[in-house]
Amino acid sequence: MFAAMNRFRVYPDREGDFERIWKERQSFLKEVPGFVQFALLRGDDAGDYISHSTWADRDSFLAWTRSEAFVRGHAQGSLQGILASTPQLSLFSAVIEEDASGRRIDPSQPVPGRRMSLPEH
Amino acid sequence: MFAAMNRFRVYPDREGDFERIWKERQSFLKEVPGFVQFALLRGDDAGDYISHSTWADRDSFLAWTRSEAFVRGHAQGSLQGILASTPQLSLFSAVIEEDASGRRIDPSQPVPGRRMSLPEH
Repeated sequence: MFAAMNRFRVYPDREGDFERIWKERQSFLKEVPGFVQFALLRGDDAGDYISHSTWADRDSFLAWTRSEAFVRGHAQGSLQGILASTPQLSLFSAVIEEDASGRRIDPSQPVPGRRMSLPEH
Repeated sequence: MFAAMNRFRVYPDREGDFERIWKERQSFLKEVPGFVQFALLRGDDAGDYISHSTWADRDSFLAWTRSEAFVRGHAQGSLQGILASTPQLSLFSAVIEEDASGRRIDPSQPVPGRRMSLPEH
C-alpha cells in the first residue's frame, strides 16, 4: 500500500465552502490504474483536512499525477480565499498492513508464502 | 470511516529498530469491534512514520483505547531511545469516501439511497 496525504489548512469560517467544493467535484479516480481508495478527512482541529488516497504502489500514484484524469480533476472548483496556507503533500509506504481478518502483510516481503500470520489466542 | 493517525519522529539511525519492534509486536486488533484496517506507514522524510488505523466510527476507536486489547498491544516493545519526540495523535472523520469501483459515499448522508453516484463518461 502506498498513501498520499495532502494536508489543508482551511479558514475555520470557510469549512462549509471547502467541503461543498469537494462534494461537487467530479472524480476521475476510478479510471486510474492502481487506485485503491480516496477519502477527504476532517480533523478534530478546526480547519484541518487531509485529502487521503491509497494506491497499489508509488508508481501508480506518480503515473496519476502525470495523467489527464489528474488535470481534469484538479481544474474544478477554486480554493482561493479558503486555504490559510499552501497544502502540504506527504507520501508514505506501508511497512506493515493488517486488516480485520487478522491478515498481516509485510510489504517488504512480497514473496508468496512469506506473509506473517499471527498466533491464535 | 474514522481514522486515527499517530505520527512518530524516529531518530534516523534507529529506523531499523523501530520497524523491527513493530513487526515483532503481536496485534490484537482483529478481536476489536469496528476495526477496519491498520498500517504502519513510512514517510519519504527520514524518521517520519505514522501508525494509521481506520475504524467503522469514532466510538469503535474510543472503545478500543479503553480495552484490554489496547493495553496488551501497547505493553510490548519499548521505544525508549528511538523516538526523537512525543508521538502526535490526530483523529479524522471522513467527509467523502470513494473506492476503486467509483462508489462515492458522503458519510454525513447515511440514509439508504442517498449515496452520490458519478456520471459515466
